[in-house]
Amino acid sequence: MTNHRVTLGLIQSRAAADPDRNLAATARNIRLAAGGGAHIVCVQELFRSRYFPQAEDTAAFALAEPIPGPTTERFCPLARELEVVIVASVFEARAPGVYHNTAVVIDADGQLLGRYRKMHIPDDPGFYEKFYFTPGDLGFRTFRTRYARVGVLVCWDQWFPEAARLATLGGAEIIFYPTAIGWGAGETRAARGAQREAWELVQRSHAVTNGVYVAAVNRVGREGKITFWGNSFAAHPSGQVLARAGRDKPETLLVDCDLGAVAEARHNWPFLRDRRIDAYGGLTRRVIDDSSS
Amino acid sequence: MTNHRVTLGLIQSRAAADPDRNLAATARNIRLAAGGGAHIVCVQELFRSRYFPQAEDTAAFALAEPIPGPTTERFCPLARELEVVIVASVFEARAPGVYHNTAVVIDADGQLLGRYRKMHIPDDPGFYEKFYFTPGDLGFRTFRTRYARVGVLVCWDQWFPEAARLATLGGAEIIFYPTAIGWGAGETRAARGAQREAWELVQRSHAVTNGVYVAAVNRVGREGKITFWGNSFAAHPSGQVLARAGRDKPETLLVDCDLGAVAEARHNWPFLRDRRIDAYGGLTRRVIDDSSS
Repeated sequence: MTNHRVTLGLIQSRAAADPDRNLAATARNIRLAAGGGAHIVCVQELFRSRYFPQAEDTAAFALAEPIPGPTTERFCPLARELEVVIVASVFEARAPGVYHNTAVVIDADGQLLGRYRKMHIPDDPGFYEKFYFTPGDLGFRTFRTRYARVGVLVCWDQWFPEAARLATLGGAEIIFYPTAIGWGAGETRAARGAQREAWELVQRSHAVTNGVYVAAVNRVGREGKITFWGNSFAAHPSGQVLARAGRDKPETLLVDCDLGAVAEARHNWPFLRDRRIDAYGGLTRRVIDDSSS
Repeated sequence: MTNHRVTLGLIQSRAAADPDRNLAATARNIRLAAGGGAHIVCVQELFRSRYFPQAEDTAAFALAEPIPGPTTERFCPLARELEVVIVASVFEARAPGVYHNTAVVIDADGQLLGRYRKMHIPDDPGFYEKFYFTPGDLGFRTFRTRYARVGVLVCWDQWFPEAARLATLGGAEIIFYPTAIGWGAGETRAARGAQREAWELVQRSHAVTNGVYVAAVNRVGREGKITFWGNSFAAHPSGQVLARAGRDKPETLLVDCDLGAVAEARHNWPFLRDRRIDAYGGLTRRVIDDSSS
């Protein structure tokens, strides 16, 4: 258990068409966040490009990169220079025909601590990720960084309580969610509000039920038919929103966190003490008690 | 999959000292709810008594009753007469020294469909339930009633995403939470607001992540040092609050639900499709990757 303060830097951006430009702009924002006091910086999902899974197009595989590769070659020295931890999203080229939606964690000494490969892959109109990304095969991981033990999950993972729980059981004090979520064309104002609200409340709920900090970093801007809704935020282990960005402008949130609040929350709400691990076996089943289980 | 409307009746009450009086008053409220159109009625946790777990006192075991017993003998004929499903909380006497915090489900023909024994037992200052209640040994159950397939969980269970998920995988369209939650003396107004908000958002989150209706029924009134906060509510599978009672008065909520919204929510947000059941084994562990696991 740690008991000190860390400042998170959440970098909400608008993506340009050119990956090099996005990489350079994000590096600049990381530098600014570090200058503002950030210890751990997180960028949005697939930050090097526009959100290509809006369409199924084999040409987009050209955007993928190995790990190590251009992103880590840029960010590892930057992390070392600034002494910041960087959580970065990478479209990972593992082998021809095997690509992952991956997040890397770089420690404050510039070392690549490891990677998480997105486990839950969405496929909705305009979010055709199953075409591009092989589901992760590394499980749910946490990383002991210089400033905190962090879990990293990616976007669609945020709707799965199992993922947040496993990150927590693995020791996460803060769970980061690089994200790309937005509204499609033709959705009503009420439907848009309900979606964004549900997105935030589910993640705040993960904070409460696990006694962890949660930080989501989403992009902004209209790309094709999708309007990405920003609203990057961080929540306290009590579920309270500590900071929230706007919905349509690039913005870096600096969020001061007291890691002692993790233990304090779990002492006040001792859910982890009372989990019925003897009775949770059914969670590894698709459906229970139907004719096809 | 069902596709019709049902009306829920959520009976938020203030408990008197006399169990017979509470039983009679609750029967009257069930009758009124049925007269108002309710198909499925749920009462608050341990509705027959004041909230005795505020103190550890062996005298309180006298409040326990067998199943069948006084509560089911009163409510089974009532359910048959009114053609309503009744979800009722019972302090179950199973054997001397073995008591449970149980909920029974009575179908609209008066048949006792079954019981659920609270699986997660709290123990907090003023909520000394571990003294009274043996943790449930029946697992997480759903019940095919005349009007809907329902899951029943009780109070502290509401903080555990595992419980809501297992009820959902078992086929629940609606999850009921008979509840007794309140504020202790000396808590600040801000802390009180944060607790109540966290309580509601966690349950709304269960609605979203599972695509189910969620209904919580809490008591009101000051009993000893606890002020029970009411705020009984029902949430749509999208997470939106459909109805919410006040914080200090007895009140019966009648909530119209379209069960077709369950499938609709899951089609729009297909989380159940994408669960990584191959990677959830760690959920049956207490802690992962520590020295004592």
